[in-house]
Amino acid sequence: MIYENLSVNLDGHLLFAGYDTLELAKEFGTALFVMDENRIRQRCREYQKAMAAYLPAGSHPLYASKAMSIKRIYQIMKEENMGVDVVSPGELYTAVKAGFPMENAYFHGSSKTDEDIRFAMEHKIGFFICDNADELDAIDAEAARQGICQKILLRLAPGIDPHTHEKINTGRVDSKFGVAIETGQATKLVGKTLAKKNIILWGYHCHVGSQLFDEALFCDTATNMLTFVADMQKQYGHTAKVVNLGGGMGVPYTEEQGKIDYAGTIQKIGAYITALCQQLQIAPPAILMEPGRSIVADSGITLYSVTGTKEIPGFKNFVGIDGGMTDNPRYTLYQSPYTVYNAGKMNECADFVCTVAGRCCESGDLIQENITLPRPVRGDILAVLTTGAYNYSMASNYNRVPRPPVVMIGQNGPYIAVRRETYEDLLLCDQ
Amino acid sequence: MIYENLSVNLDGHLLFAGYDTLELAKEFGTALFVMDENRIRQRCREYQKAMAAYLPAGSHPLYASKAMSIKRIYQIMKEENMGVDVVSPGELYTAVKAGFPMENAYFHGSSKTDEDIRFAMEHKIGFFICDNADELDAIDAEAARQGICQKILLRLAPGIDPHTHEKINTGRVDSKFGVAIETGQATKLVGKTLAKKNIILWGYHCHVGSQLFDEALFCDTATNMLTFVADMQKQYGHTAKVVNLGGGMGVPYTEEQGKIDYAGTIQKIGAYITALCQQLQIAPPAILMEPGRSIVADSGITLYSVTGTKEIPGFKNFVGIDGGMTDNPRYTLYQSPYTVYNAGKMNECADFVCTVAGRCCESGDLIQENITLPRPVRGDILAVLTTGAYNYSMASNYNRVPRPPVVMIGQNGPYIAVRRETYEDLLLCDQ
Repeated sequence: MIYENLSVNLDGHLLFAGYDTLELAKEFGTALFVMDENRIRQRCREYQKAMAAYLPAGSHPLYASKAMSIKRIYQIMKEENMGVDVVSPGELYTAVKAGFPMENAYFHGSSKTDEDIRFAMEHKIGFFICDNADELDAIDAEAARQGICQKILLRLAPGIDPHTHEKINTGRVDSKFGVAIETGQATKLVGKTLAKKNIILWGYHCHVGSQLFDEALFCDTATNMLTFVADMQKQYGHTAKVVNLGGGMGVPYTEEQGKIDYAGTIQKIGAYITALCQQLQIAPPAILMEPGRSIVADSGITLYSVTGTKEIPGFKNFVGIDGGMTDNPRYTLYQSPYTVYNAGKMNECADFVCTVAGRCCESGDLIQENITLPRPVRGDILAVLTTGAYNYSMASNYNRVPRPPVVMIGQNGPYIAVRRETYEDLLLCDQ
Repeated sequence: MIYENLSVNLDGHLLFAGYDTLELAKEFGTALFVMDENRIRQRCREYQKAMAAYLPAGSHPLYASKAMSIKRIYQIMKEENMGVDVVSPGELYTAVKAGFPMENAYFHGSSKTDEDIRFAMEHKIGFFICDNADELDAIDAEAARQGICQKILLRLAPGIDPHTHEKINTGRVDSKFGVAIETGQATKLVGKTLAKKNIILWGYHCHVGSQLFDEALFCDTATNMLTFVADMQKQYGHTAKVVNLGGGMGVPYTEEQGKIDYAGTIQKIGAYITALCQQLQIAPPAILMEPGRSIVADSGITLYSVTGTKEIPGFKNFVGIDGGMTDNPRYTLYQSPYTVYNAGKMNECADFVCTVAGRCCESGDLIQENITLPRPVRGDILAVLTTGAYNYSMASNYNRVPRPPVVMIGQNGPYIAVRRETYEDLLLCDQ
């Protein structure tokens, strides 16, 4: 199987984290998210151990919570001593309500309002990732109003194109995020930051891509970022305490995408950074990384009930399900690949070529096209793998479809982390 | 201006339905949906009047409520004597709670569960749009269980490609919706339906496209559908009482897209259908149409606050806003065009070429690229037009961003139809 926490029992049923998916579907209903708590914890520990072993002193991971932002996740992150990044007051509030220690939280986002900034400071957020000059002024003004000195990291656009793995003049310089190194704007912003009375410039942040399966891009990025650190030390005498390389470690969604050795990749990045700092003659800053997808994606699956099949002779076959783009918009948005199983027929011959279509009245509401399954019938359970990241967090109520519950498989078995929305819930804000 | 309900006052502020958008933003906050109730009512009346005048007796419009499904909309539809179509139990429940008379409601969807079917019948829905053979069996079984005879329309795939306006062998025959005429499957399903004891076959339904700006595609579709009606009359002696041609009438999002004369288009469709029925020697069935977008799209605008601009010399300029793909995913999904104004600077020179970027930590969160605006600064209000359809209804809480309120401009001024979500609301289902 593609992941170690999947297996098949003697009845040909798919087991997830040791539990029969057909039983889970029966007990909790469909559409249903199921998550493997133990696997989430293992991923956190893998990052922490590798970053402590191979990166400069003080290096550690922050969970990028936009991948999956629910109360229970922040509790797990607290228990695992992870830092977190939050991208909005809503994520921040969820972390607060989960009892997460806010000094270990970093507030992201390229478009913070004055109200967002006030809210985050009132909740004593540890760090702002400051995106631009307008925001710097606003953070400084609010910090002055609240009588504090706010630690920030400046978000930089290091001029790396994730598609080519090259340092180039175009491409990612023109990101909506951060301030470009290459145009000289980042240097100016450092000068402006250092002149602010209520701001402490703790270091720099960047993020250059997603679904990266080796160390190459991280090393290219580290070169640009640490060269900038050295330049700022020369120009302003400012020493960055941390450099945050962002997220981006890949997760395989299908067997063909191969596996990624997170610890091995971090080891290679560490060796590169050590040599780089020697070459640049700077003390190695602590390195932060922001795994989101690689912490939760393959810890989650979605279970759907089949509503029927539609065979159009000479054309194609459809399988209808009781969910779709409302709980997983990633195929509609990006044509993302997924692995799909007919969960009760794991030992049967997969010879039915089909498109899995969601329940929305929208032609584009598909989960996967032209996959092969043991022929489904109304009532069968389909399992879509690797849905722990950017599924529940991106879910909508389009077509007024309630969002599915999130059931975690914990130490003592399955429990409801997020309950199913009701039709009544959908009317909460209607006057 | 692109729409009649827009104007500019002496201070250079954009007015919507006679109200200063800067005042609305101040009073209700941003991001904010504003809708013009009077314009929604006008659109309903335009369809009703034209369909009564030019189409066979009994013809009338159903509002396709997936475009914008909130309680207040169903109240307006009830007051305007509109039918509605609902695509899920959630939409159905919202209509029920609004006091909408369910005998005038049609239940759509290609993927109905047994539970959905039971729920709709218990709420005495007028009609099912039955999508396929599996669903037919399920509807019949539930109707038998409840001891009723359920009126249905069969959803057909008439084999029309909306892109080419031609009847073709490929393309739309392979839709996830309905049963194909061309493959002979539709004819068989009619036979099967007529043999069901608890089903009344009221007529047929289809839907072939969106954003159609003339009558051509509707006429092509009517040909296939009414020929099928004539064939079924010959083969089974069954007379269809209605033929539902679905939705699809276009709405201009920019000046360049031109205007559409809904009544004139319906007049042409009516003349075509009258001649067609004579030729086919059938009594003209009542025609239903399902306008959604063309009822509400240009009755809505979105107001955002600017959080800052980012100029990257030699590259591009960004304008940050306090909303984005969470309230309007249509640019991210389909690169849909929109008209954007700097609402407080309507009389100033539009010379700032920019990309309007949303607040999500996602590169693709853009509202529009390479548009020209009077140079915005932090605190300015941007108005995005034509957001009444498929914006609020498709909104998500991605990045844990609360959904904006919907403020209606009614007879007596602005009122809140849907209140703003709070951070606390986001935790409603978290355990």
